[in-house]
Amino acid sequence: MINGHGDDAYAYDTAITANFSSNVCPDIDLSGLKAHLRACLDTLGSYPEPEPYTLEDRLADRFRLPKGGVCVTNGATEAIYLLAQTFRGSGSAVVQPTFSEYADACRMHAHTVKTLYALPGSRERYRLPEGVGMLRLCNPNNPTGLVTDREILKRVVERNPQVCFVIDQSYEAFTLERLWSPAEAAAFPNVLLLHSLTKRYAVPGLRLGYVTGVPSLLKRLRANRMPWSVNQLAIQAGIYLLDHPEEAPMEVEPYLRETRRLRLQLEKLGAVEVWDTQTHFQLARLRVGRAAALKDYLAKEHGLLIRDASNFEGLDDCFFRISTQRPEENDRLVAAIAQWLEI
Amino acid sequence: MINGHGDDAYAYDTAITANFSSNVCPDIDLSGLKAHLRACLDTLGSYPEPEPYTLEDRLADRFRLPKGGVCVTNGATEAIYLLAQTFRGSGSAVVQPTFSEYADACRMHAHTVKTLYALPGSRERYRLPEGVGMLRLCNPNNPTGLVTDREILKRVVERNPQVCFVIDQSYEAFTLERLWSPAEAAAFPNVLLLHSLTKRYAVPGLRLGYVTGVPSLLKRLRANRMPWSVNQLAIQAGIYLLDHPEEAPMEVEPYLRETRRLRLQLEKLGAVEVWDTQTHFQLARLRVGRAAALKDYLAKEHGLLIRDASNFEGLDDCFFRISTQRPEENDRLVAAIAQWLEI
Repeated sequence: MINGHGDDAYAYDTAITANFSSNVCPDIDLSGLKAHLRACLDTLGSYPEPEPYTLEDRLADRFRLPKGGVCVTNGATEAIYLLAQTFRGSGSAVVQPTFSEYADACRMHAHTVKTLYALPGSRERYRLPEGVGMLRLCNPNNPTGLVTDREILKRVVERNPQVCFVIDQSYEAFTLERLWSPAEAAAFPNVLLLHSLTKRYAVPGLRLGYVTGVPSLLKRLRANRMPWSVNQLAIQAGIYLLDHPEEAPMEVEPYLRETRRLRLQLEKLGAVEVWDTQTHFQLARLRVGRAAALKDYLAKEHGLLIRDASNFEGLDDCFFRISTQRPEENDRLVAAIAQWLEI
Repeated sequence: MINGHGDDAYAYDTAITANFSSNVCPDIDLSGLKAHLRACLDTLGSYPEPEPYTLEDRLADRFRLPKGGVCVTNGATEAIYLLAQTFRGSGSAVVQPTFSEYADACRMHAHTVKTLYALPGSRERYRLPEGVGMLRLCNPNNPTGLVTDREILKRVVERNPQVCFVIDQSYEAFTLERLWSPAEAAAFPNVLLLHSLTKRYAVPGLRLGYVTGVPSLLKRLRANRMPWSVNQLAIQAGIYLLDHPEEAPMEVEPYLRETRRLRLQLEKLGAVEVWDTQTHFQLARLRVGRAAALKDYLAKEHGLLIRDASNFEGLDDCFFRISTQRPEENDRLVAAIAQWLEI
């Protein structure tokens, strides 16, 4: 595991008043869920189901997947590691720059890790390099915010039937681009989708994710899963959220509009280059100075936390990532960066 | 993972009104902890620390261990699997009958698993068989309730410096026998102790355990740990319990006295043989009939849940395990078993 993931407010003595560092949406109304969890505290005296069967069956119904088509995990992170363990010793390709845990998990379980900077296109006839047994792709991608084209992805999946495609859709709720639904992905025998309930509902403290795909592939995953990995409150939260589809509605369009507004503000500063994004976080690069110094300044002087993105493979020490917050917070961030640039 | 762990109330339609099936103490006053967790629900919007450093440092201070002497895990179960992964491919000895996850975890990670029915004694000069690189021992042992003699254990540990001893003390709070303290165990370079906060405080739904030992051994464990495996509420609960040592006091002596009373009541039935125990649960064997049938009858007709212990290695289908509950519940259990025997 690397040091320097986002959401590291614990590393600072100053109070963080706005957190741009983890890709968690600020404006989810969790009052109903929290009231439910308060009532659930009395169930902590019981073990959770050893494997979260009930929630898995409910999710399978919800997505019109066959029984066995969902594997619930202790956050999407458990799925990332469980897949590496299940395919121990494989050749794995990771489309970079991306979430560092894909390569870390693969290396921990003796994979040979190959770095790709894009999926192979028509010139390579969509064929992956020899020796690749698993491909890891984040879609929308962290930290770039970009979505992979559905048609290219379909061709690559079809031309490489020997490869297991692990597509992390943790940010699927935060884009207007059309992604594969669980049922669409499960039509391929070699595709697994990773999903994050904690990202969608802004409760990363609970740890709740799930994998969808063909039952035969997921069965291999389950054979490597330890019992009770998902805690009782996470299971209860998942069931509650399925029972209350009206809960915590999220309007993507205004959120992405605010993301574009933030981008334009940052670009106006002149000294910051901002990458195009198709989701609610964006990658930026300082034309002067280092991201680590900016991060420190913002945390200590302004109580604002950003993600120093210099430890993503392929990015240099000028990169940072910001997840869009409320308009007034975004304005505070832009003003604070402007101040830092003037020092 | 096996099916048929304890605490499987979810497998029954009838309401379970007393649960003898998981070794969780019924009378822990959790009002303070629950009030704290209610207040903590607002922290679910943040990631937990990627590794629970703060709680680990606090536990190390508490047990007078050097920094790095504690590794906090997602229940003791994560420790069981993490150890198997870290020592992948070892020869492992498991002292049976015991918690099935030790052998399961070892097999999952390609260990050669050897079954022992006791530690080697003076006749074998305390030497473990050739090829054993790790030994798993539960102390007090589940399901027998027996405690391993400190002196024999010390001699075996000293005579086998090439073996990593993994001693699961999840039930350490529920015995009057003297066990190794974390500091005593950490004086050996080849001993790790597993501990369970969720067992001690009767909150298995939270998932919180920890390993103590020499930092050099624990460092290897940490290198194999995935980030964010311990959820935010479990971490908060652990810190709260350290800050409030007066919380949820537990009187072992009356609890074990009630365990002995239950044992005598069961023995009076004549058709049940009960093993001696040094903790709050006990192993029993039907002289007539099968444990699975008794379990089903008790759950469906009386709302009482026991642990069918026939799937423990070395035990036959007449064994069951019961964890002592409140006196009136224990009386209900004895009366219900008496009824079943008369059918």
